[in-house]
Amino acid sequence: MRTTAVGVFKIATRGPGDVSGLMAMIGSGAIDPTSILAILGKTEGNGGVNDFTREYAVAALCTALAPKLGLSSEAVEQRIAFVMSGGTEGVLSPHITVFTRREAERPAGMSGKRLSIGMAHTRDFLPEELGRSAQITETATAVKAAMEDAGITDPTDVHFVQIKCPLLTSERVEAAKARGNKTATTSSYSSMAYSRGASALGVAVALGEIASDIRDEDVLRRDDLFSNVASTSSGIELMHNVVIVLGNSASSASTFEIGHAVMDDAIDAAAVMSALTSVGLGTTPQPGRELVNVFAKAEASPDGSVRGDRHTMLEDTDISSTRHARAAVGGLIAGLAGTGAVYVSGGAEHQGPAGGGPVAVIARLS
Amino acid sequence: MRTTAVGVFKIATRGPGDVSGLMAMIGSGAIDPTSILAILGKTEGNGGVNDFTREYAVAALCTALAPKLGLSSEAVEQRIAFVMSGGTEGVLSPHITVFTRREAERPAGMSGKRLSIGMAHTRDFLPEELGRSAQITETATAVKAAMEDAGITDPTDVHFVQIKCPLLTSERVEAAKARGNKTATTSSYSSMAYSRGASALGVAVALGEIASDIRDEDVLRRDDLFSNVASTSSGIELMHNVVIVLGNSASSASTFEIGHAVMDDAIDAAAVMSALTSVGLGTTPQPGRELVNVFAKAEASPDGSVRGDRHTMLEDTDISSTRHARAAVGGLIAGLAGTGAVYVSGGAEHQGPAGGGPVAVIARLS
Amino acid sequence: MRTTAVGVFKIATRGPGDVSGLMAMIGSGAIDPTSILAILGKTEGNGGVNDFTREYAVAALCTALAPKLGLSSEAVEQRIAFVMSGGTEGVLSPHITVFTRREAERPAGMSGKRLSIGMAHTRDFLPEELGRSAQITETATAVKAAMEDAGITDPTDVHFVQIKCPLLTSERVEAAKARGNKTATTSSYSSMAYSRGASALGVAVALGEIASDIRDEDVLRRDDLFSNVASTSSGIELMHNVVIVLGNSASSASTFEIGHAVMDDAIDAAAVMSALTSVGLGTTPQPGRELVNVFAKAEASPDGSVRGDRHTMLEDTDISSTRHARAAVGGLIAGLAGTGAVYVSGGAEHQGPAGGGPVAVIARLS
Amino acid sequence: MRTTAVGVFKIATRGPGDVSGLMAMIGSGAIDPTSILAILGKTEGNGGVNDFTREYAVAALCTALAPKLGLSSEAVEQRIAFVMSGGTEGVLSPHITVFTRREAERPAGMSGKRLSIGMAHTRDFLPEELGRSAQITETATAVKAAMEDAGITDPTDVHFVQIKCPLLTSERVEAAKARGNKTATTSSYSSMAYSRGASALGVAVALGEIASDIRDEDVLRRDDLFSNVASTSSGIELMHNVVIVLGNSASSASTFEIGHAVMDDAIDAAAVMSALTSVGLGTTPQPGRELVNVFAKAEASPDGSVRGDRHTMLEDTDISSTRHARAAVGGLIAGLAGTGAVYVSGGAEHQGPAGGGPVAVIARLS
Repeated sequence: MRTTAVGVFKIATRGPGDVSGLMAMIGSGAIDPTSILAILGKTEGNGGVNDFTREYAVAALCTALAPKLGLSSEAVEQRIAFVMSGGTEGVLSPHITVFTRREAERPAGMSGKRLSIGMAHTRDFLPEELGRSAQITETATAVKAAMEDAGITDPTDVHFVQIKCPLLTSERVEAAKARGNKTATTSSYSSMAYSRGASALGVAVALGEIASDIRDEDVLRRDDLFSNVASTSSGIELMHNVVIVLGNSASSASTFEIGHAVMDDAIDAAAVMSALTSVGLGTTPQPGRELVNVFAKAEASPDGSVRGDRHTMLEDTDISSTRHARAAVGGLIAGLAGTGAVYVSGGAEHQGPAGGGPVAVIARLS
Repeated sequence: MRTTAVGVFKIATRGPGDVSGLMAMIGSGAIDPTSILAILGKTEGNGGVNDFTREYAVAALCTALAPKLGLSSEAVEQRIAFVMSGGTEGVLSPHITVFTRREAERPAGMSGKRLSIGMAHTRDFLPEELGRSAQITETATAVKAAMEDAGITDPTDVHFVQIKCPLLTSERVEAAKARGNKTATTSSYSSMAYSRGASALGVAVALGEIASDIRDEDVLRRDDLFSNVASTSSGIELMHNVVIVLGNSASSASTFEIGHAVMDDAIDAAAVMSALTSVGLGTTPQPGRELVNVFAKAEASPDGSVRGDRHTMLEDTDISSTRHARAAVGGLIAGLAGTGAVYVSGGAEHQGPAGGGPVAVIARLS
Repeated sequence: MRTTAVGVFKIATRGPGDVSGLMAMIGSGAIDPTSILAILGKTEGNGGVNDFTREYAVAALCTALAPKLGLSSEAVEQRIAFVMSGGTEGVLSPHITVFTRREAERPAGMSGKRLSIGMAHTRDFLPEELGRSAQITETATAVKAAMEDAGITDPTDVHFVQIKCPLLTSERVEAAKARGNKTATTSSYSSMAYSRGASALGVAVALGEIASDIRDEDVLRRDDLFSNVASTSSGIELMHNVVIVLGNSASSASTFEIGHAVMDDAIDAAAVMSALTSVGLGTTPQPGRELVNVFAKAEASPDGSVRGDRHTMLEDTDISSTRHARAAVGGLIAGLAGTGAVYVSGGAEHQGPAGGGPVAVIARLS
Repeated sequence: MRTTAVGVFKIATRGPGDVSGLMAMIGSGAIDPTSILAILGKTEGNGGVNDFTREYAVAALCTALAPKLGLSSEAVEQRIAFVMSGGTEGVLSPHITVFTRREAERPAGMSGKRLSIGMAHTRDFLPEELGRSAQITETATAVKAAMEDAGITDPTDVHFVQIKCPLLTSERVEAAKARGNKTATTSSYSSMAYSRGASALGVAVALGEIASDIRDEDVLRRDDLFSNVASTSSGIELMHNVVIVLGNSASSASTFEIGHAVMDDAIDAAAVMSALTSVGLGTTPQPGRELVNVFAKAEASPDGSVRGDRHTMLEDTDISSTRHARAAVGGLIAGLAGTGAVYVSGGAEHQGPAGGGPVAVIARLS
């Protein structure tokens, strides 16, 4: 059995273009650039359509890593999975989390399952497949491949599945039309939700959280269908899904552990505590355990209320509801985790129940 | 000894102009309009200079209460203390809290101190006195008068002091100049901070939290001087301070209790839990106790970080830092209290430590 | 033939609740409150879903006018047509325009057609009729009735038709469903566009601008169908359309004249000049003529560009496109008219061509 | 006498990171990269403190130009003057204007003065010199040097002076303090205004628009002191002023001409027409003349009104006043120029009268 060591490095940034922290760790030898598999980041933008901090951060990282990897910037963007989530509302603090992986012996005395990471991707989709069963099915297959890559066989060992997925542009809509096919939507903005939703449903199918007979018309409509561990985000730069599976595996030699819970709503403090407790970081933390990061999805509950109290996030023409939701859920998680440098991302279609979302925690063991 | 019964009614609103909930309770006899002392509300606006939801809410309440009290709208506004805090960011839910008081016998079997409310006001200030020692000293005197009105002698029994205070307008600045005097600032916007800050310092002096020898130049500069229980808000409609003291008193026959704690920073979950616990609503709530409301002040820490993690609230040109802070602190408190219908207000000069603020909780005993 | 004198009074406001200017003119006898037919206003809000300045302004006006008219506030709101447009972006200046009408002899020497105003309303609509042909047809009938009320027979004498129309709420959607009928949309927000669009098409049908065979599926889809003089705005408080026709009539004894033009896009300076010139207020104004107000609709062109230059209004997650459009068109009109106290309103579905809109001007003759 | 040919290329961008238009023109030989002197751009951000589109655009341009110039990215940023103005509100359209210069014979038949460009820079400033007379005096000297570089002797031939100037950071404030000196302000944000203001005053001194005896306390206070042609913008990346003078010179062999006027307020359409007319692009454009670009500064008038009508830009907590001002002035200029691809920038301290600003126009002659 192949055994791997996974590294997780949370690095504060001073701006979306700031790569100095990562470069310093590469310079000191703390991070081997060739071992970098994925970088998840929180950037300063609004998280909306005109959030340029995400692409700026990716461009800055690719430009800086290119000479270290002997690759062009474009090739770096192909090699490493970059997932930037815009919006550090409230106490949220801009940072990146760098995931590395290398072959490594598992020490003799190591017991229990440890953090493992696996990746896979689907084939390119046709525009008319986005937000529909083709995307769901292919994503499910890719999730299983990523699990295998991570050395995980039991779906309950999967605690967070981050997916990058495509969106529609007017060119792509036209291309489908030229073939005589209609896309799920003609709006770029809503195609993002369709693609995120179908991708999350793919995770749920792969992990057996829901049955596999999802119909096209269920996407973005049946909010009883969801994954407890999916976190999906759509971008213009690709036409396939990139799947990153984070879980615990007996084949991992890493010094990290991951756990998760599901927030039923945006004020579900108990779920956050449960996720922390699952990796030994509850009210009374286990000795030798330290928080690395929390990963969560947030959204304004679509019915306009949280536990019966009306919220105003969906009627605010000044601030988008995703910004409100990240600020509030970020405040809660930061309070319970003791730090604002956590990954709270918006847009949670089929990712946790309506108004809620998954919350995963990675702990370092010493 | 005069004994009083204090009532506290939290009523959800469907908009800033919605008075139907309060009118229904008056109609059913649940609330005697002549007993209403103060109404604190959270409204939907941005909490900034152009937040018209506050004055709209007050106008709607005055118009609706006028016939019930046999008074003009203007007279209602004089009689009842209205404090509207704009901004229901994130999960915060618009509502009003109505405080009533009437003479009442204390039941024979009642033990311990119970919620009591007292009010007082200062003389009118000259514009040049705002934000300076005159306002501090006069406020301190009024706080003591309000304590006496509440039947409270021990400062440690005071748990929340809400103050309405004046601000400067260009006319008021000119009037001072015509007398040969300079005001603390010429900007209306910053005069609000000066007035809030001096008023909070007045509370701190009255309760012995700080020494009484505050100098004019300490206001808005020495952030080591603050009150743990002050919550101040400035408005254009008055030239004096209105002081509302909330505490526990042996002379109260009410079925409510109040407690408080101080948040050291915006993610101080322990302080929120401590405030809840102080009235029997901690992790394992005492039987027969029910949450009525939480009252807290929030602000973006002026040094740009929370426990060492950089925040971006003060550099955001799209969303004001007070909105960010309310959203985040509101998310945390709502998570721990189990409801978004809580009173979280922004602008915490000299109200708790820099970046933190007081948090008070009222519980109903059955 | 009945002859009428129409008055038009533009009054600056100091806030959405400021009625002092109107009250002063009533106090001085300049305005007879019983002659007030309609009040159009620009208020300080964001013009979006959570813009409470519109209802606040109406509430303040009704409360103030009630004793002057010997009516309840509610009855005032029924009697006078209030149309408040939120959003005074850029140089736009908050104000109200009061339209009055009374029977009056036309002076012997008066020549030409003068400003006339007519009103009418449709029957109440069923929720399932909104945004569809029933609303179009009934509105067309009401426009003709309002023309007759204004003493206008020739459609080319109609220069501005302001309409207030209903929107859908979840209750109304449910009521339709209970009857087995589907509404045009289930979203409140998009129902506003449907209702505005169908109402504008009704104007176009009435004035012969388009053929009368509009199908339900043309609404919000065929942007080649539009009226050059319609300005529609939807509100929650009514289930019928209120139609206000402004034009010139030989039966009018007023000292005002109205004209209009159509902006082809948001930078159509020539159209604004043409509208001004049509009432003698062009580059070299005719003597004895004075600008009263300009009424215009603005929107971000749906194709994302203005004369080939890309705009960013539709991708801005921080500021809604209607705010951008009002600011820009307001800047242009204010520059050409010489004042920011003009009525520029957003949301121009079927009101002028895509990205453009009608612009009308009222001049006072002395 | 050295004669030069100046090129001006306006290139639309599809995003802040889009360099494809410039690269295509370099690829086709239309632009010689070694001749590029300065690039002025409008980017999509908010123009505020957290506008990262400016630095993203500069980073993208430097990365793309580096191989073309055989320099590192850092060296490109030193060689070319990049001035990015964030904020394309309303109809404003993102674009860059590339200025090139090379030695060239002036054709025999060429008559009149033509567009010329000159550059110079000051020495590095001490933090305590920013916003004060040292910055004013040194800037004045640099403006004269840039005029000489442009071959301009008569100040009336100078029509636009773009300056990049430093700002204060907490480190710089501390460095001054360590020397026992106080800076003009301790806030980064207000230091930008001080630096812009002093730089503009330097232009005014150099051109003889005002006397040279400016005192430190006049900066940001005496709004009767201003330049009619200065446009200044501060950035963190330098400690000296970079001065770009645009004017007409008999030593220029270029096919462009520049002119300017001063807007007295934000709705000064006459001034915009006058600037257009000054280069033959008025109501009836001269044959063989074509608009290249308009350069203007905009601001909300500090007294809260425009020609007596109250504006709400300064009280808006949702949208900063600079965004409002750019949207409105941009709408007016776009309407009169016939395009939204114009350079309208905010923050006009001592650049034109209070509430107004300079407006310059470049025309191409064929």
